[in-house]
Amino acid sequence: LISWIENASPALPMIMKELAPDTGRAHVIGVTGAPGVGKSTTATALIRAHRARGERVGVLAVDPSSPFSGGALLGDRVRMQEHALDPDVYIRSMATRGHLGGLAVATPQALRAYDAAGFDTVIVETVGVGQSELEVAETADTILVLLAPGMGDGIQAAKAGILEIGDIFVVNKSDREGAQALVRELRTMIALAQRGPQDWKPPIVMTVASEHRGISDLLEAIDRFRASQADTGRAQKRRVARARREVESIALAKLRAEFRLDGETGLDDLAEAVSRGELDPYAAADQMVIGH
Amino acid sequence: LISWIENASPALPMIMKELAPDTGRAHVIGVTGAPGVGKSTTATALIRAHRARGERVGVLAVDPSSPFSGGALLGDRVRMQEHALDPDVYIRSMATRGHLGGLAVATPQALRAYDAAGFDTVIVETVGVGQSELEVAETADTILVLLAPGMGDGIQAAKAGILEIGDIFVVNKSDREGAQALVRELRTMIALAQRGPQDWKPPIVMTVASEHRGISDLLEAIDRFRASQADTGRAQKRRVARARREVESIALAKLRAEFRLDGETGLDDLAEAVSRGELDPYAAADQMVIGH
Repeated sequence: LISWIENASPALPMIMKELAPDTGRAHVIGVTGAPGVGKSTTATALIRAHRARGERVGVLAVDPSSPFSGGALLGDRVRMQEHALDPDVYIRSMATRGHLGGLAVATPQALRAYDAAGFDTVIVETVGVGQSELEVAETADTILVLLAPGMGDGIQAAKAGILEIGDIFVVNKSDREGAQALVRELRTMIALAQRGPQDWKPPIVMTVASEHRGISDLLEAIDRFRASQADTGRAQKRRVARARREVESIALAKLRAEFRLDGETGLDDLAEAVSRGELDPYAAADQMVIGH
Repeated sequence: LISWIENASPALPMIMKELAPDTGRAHVIGVTGAPGVGKSTTATALIRAHRARGERVGVLAVDPSSPFSGGALLGDRVRMQEHALDPDVYIRSMATRGHLGGLAVATPQALRAYDAAGFDTVIVETVGVGQSELEVAETADTILVLLAPGMGDGIQAAKAGILEIGDIFVVNKSDREGAQALVRELRTMIALAQRGPQDWKPPIVMTVASEHRGISDLLEAIDRFRASQADTGRAQKRRVARARREVESIALAKLRAEFRLDGETGLDDLAEAVSRGELDPYAAADQMVIGH
């Protein structure tokens, strides 16, 4: 099903219709952060922790540099073997670059597939840089933002918009020098990034995911966040927002496909004229939309 | 004008119409790579080199973690002061997150503004991770992909799709240990990533941008690439492709805005139904498009 989603199969509308009644139960945890902070290792530790509770766990890696996506060092791959034979764990990477609508269409669809397949928890791993990637991260029910000490770009990456989307911050590799300093710095930055009064203050959890240290603290923070979201009705609000994006991006992909497929809109000729300065892009866009 | 572009001003269609006849001359150099490889330092070195030729130079930083965007270390800022008082240099960062169409709409528009303002060379700096960011990088006439030794994620970042888009590869900080190994590794990977027979083999240039070393080699590589592109007609093809994306993204932004503004499409109700599993997202998207 996820392969069909990647390839924008024409069968999807019918399949999604069948699946709809079985959706709405999975809890989606977004794991985001710069390359090298330990997203996949943390995801692996979270799989183990959720499995220990008897849950079925799915992982969707939309980060092309993720070890889950094939970019693994041997050590990472070995670590993930731990769950390779467990029928209640499903790990999948997804490549969407160049496809209609890209990540914005494919990711929520894929999460929907996991949801319908009965996974209790779905971990979606995205690189925490890039506009589309942040949008993907924002579709999760609970957003973990990962940082690590000794990465010169930790705070720089944090500036790229991820401070504002984090529900829980994780300082991974916290046995390294500089971990305490990073936590302090992060605390100040989170306080500054806070928008208006909120009853949820994003906690900072210190972990060494490769040794499974701090993971129970992380799980507890996730549970607290979920309870807080459910109490305030924000959990449902976030799900509606996710569905809204999903519907909108499918609608746009449909329109986009129509524009591309319909030779009558003359996009090539319009683009040629724009590139020569004979036409401006707004007038060209008007002709496309009206001409359609 | 760029502020208006950031804010999607309603005056843009009229302004772009006026500007159209004055566009089509600027050479756009894309500078992309992971955080910390030295994109801004390289851009600064390129400014100096192009100014030495008497050209007017613009820089557009769409990387939110760029020093040009305010995320500067003091040393970087001091280095950039070099060009601060030069009336023939204009440096601007651009924030578009959350705006209609985002980077895809705003970046080509901003490049159009630089072009119309008579800049000979425009350097656009983007972080080399992320779907939207790669799309932005691809709109440049000449694409420089930067790497640096000692960044564990250099090759990992390269896997994120930037190997395929590079016209010229730059190994910056090449006085550091591991530079030669990175060049060798890169050479193999470029050969593997090569798609079909091409008459342009992306060269690898070694630089120490902070000391202006290797910049004349880089300039020469850029000149050779431009000459090759002009000879084969690919330069014009790339410009048409850029205009095509621009027109298409404006058309989509228009449609998107219409969907958002028009309460009759009932997107909120549809999203609510989808989030409850009562409706599937394709059926909802159909209702949006038809209902409009």
